[in-house]
Amino acid sequence: MNWRYATKQMTTKVVSKENIDTILSATLLSPTSSGLQPFHIILISDRELKKKISPIAMNHPVIEQSSHLMIFAAWDNYTEERINHHFAYLNKQRDLPDSTTDDFRNMTLTLFKKQTPEQHFNHAAKQAYIGFALIAAANEKVDSTPMEGFNPDALDELLELKRKGLRSTAILALGYRNSESDWLVKLKKVRQPLNEFVTVMA
Amino acid sequence: MNWRYATKQMTTKVVSKENIDTILSATLLSPTSSGLQPFHIILISDRELKKKISPIAMNHPVIEQSSHLMIFAAWDNYTEERINHHFAYLNKQRDLPDSTTDDFRNMTLTLFKKQTPEQHFNHAAKQAYIGFALIAAANEKVDSTPMEGFNPDALDELLELKRKGLRSTAILALGYRNSESDWLVKLKKVRQPLNEFVTVMA
Repeated sequence: MNWRYATKQMTTKVVSKENIDTILSATLLSPTSSGLQPFHIILISDRELKKKISPIAMNHPVIEQSSHLMIFAAWDNYTEERINHHFAYLNKQRDLPDSTTDDFRNMTLTLFKKQTPEQHFNHAAKQAYIGFALIAAANEKVDSTPMEGFNPDALDELLELKRKGLRSTAILALGYRNSESDWLVKLKKVRQPLNEFVTVMA
Repeated sequence: MNWRYATKQMTTKVVSKENIDTILSATLLSPTSSGLQPFHIILISDRELKKKISPIAMNHPVIEQSSHLMIFAAWDNYTEERINHHFAYLNKQRDLPDSTTDDFRNMTLTLFKKQTPEQHFNHAAKQAYIGFALIAAANEKVDSTPMEGFNPDALDELLELKRKGLRSTAILALGYRNSESDWLVKLKKVRQPLNEFVTVMA
């Protein structure tokens, strides 16, 4: 957790398939509210496609320098179909009858029916954790750059996410730091003092 | 990441101060947009206070069984004062003149001035990652239960968060699983298949 930092310049070294698989599998283990996993990953390594994404993401150098981009995309809303599909799959995997989760499933359906699609999306976007991916990458000594500074509508259009019921929330570039050209790698990692970050209430 | 699960029943065993410090320090290392760290942790171990929180959090058994509760609370908005304070502290820690970050600081100020407080809060809430805390806890073999199913307004009032400019976003209970009474520990951890979670675009 200390080794990682938001890499600003990468070499063009490729991350191995094995490392990518480890990072994706860790991301899949991210905890989500009610276990619904309301997000999806789009994995991009194609040079031409990265070139098209660059202007959408403020031309951040790592977009093109990176080995892979992980696009985190959250559900645009919690539909009845998505919720039912999740519980059916869950019970099947556990060899349990579908009725096992009926009470909880109905509570979940009722809860989301009270909310607007925008509330759904904000909720799903919070679940689209980049944290597990970041830590798994660092564990493999793969550098990463989390980015929110991009035009989500333009990215959604380019990747045709809308018709899949998804909206992009974050980009995580994966690759290897260029220690010569990266200004940030030389600077101290700064966090507020722990006693200002935490209030102990007995 | 595989060992952890959303613990449903805990023993009342206390988590050591050393483990708590490790978990808090890891949480402090969470990456945040522009490094602004727009969230705060309230740490609670007091039995009486946990009793008061229980009805606010659907009487989830782990609220009272847990050793500690970490309340994640996000900034209610990105004020000019908070943003300026962050950059002043950052430059001081790096022995750099305050002007170093002027361009970036002004860009950040301009960006947030265009948004409503509700947009600020939604943005900050996304930064309040429980992921780093969860992984650090699991690494110390401390169990945890992430919870979003509570009444945030009631919790904010009880903990007097509003006057600190904070709004609660998640509760993370820390303690030790009760393997005898916890129904979930016996069930298979289920995630969607990796090839459905990820779309590879070359």
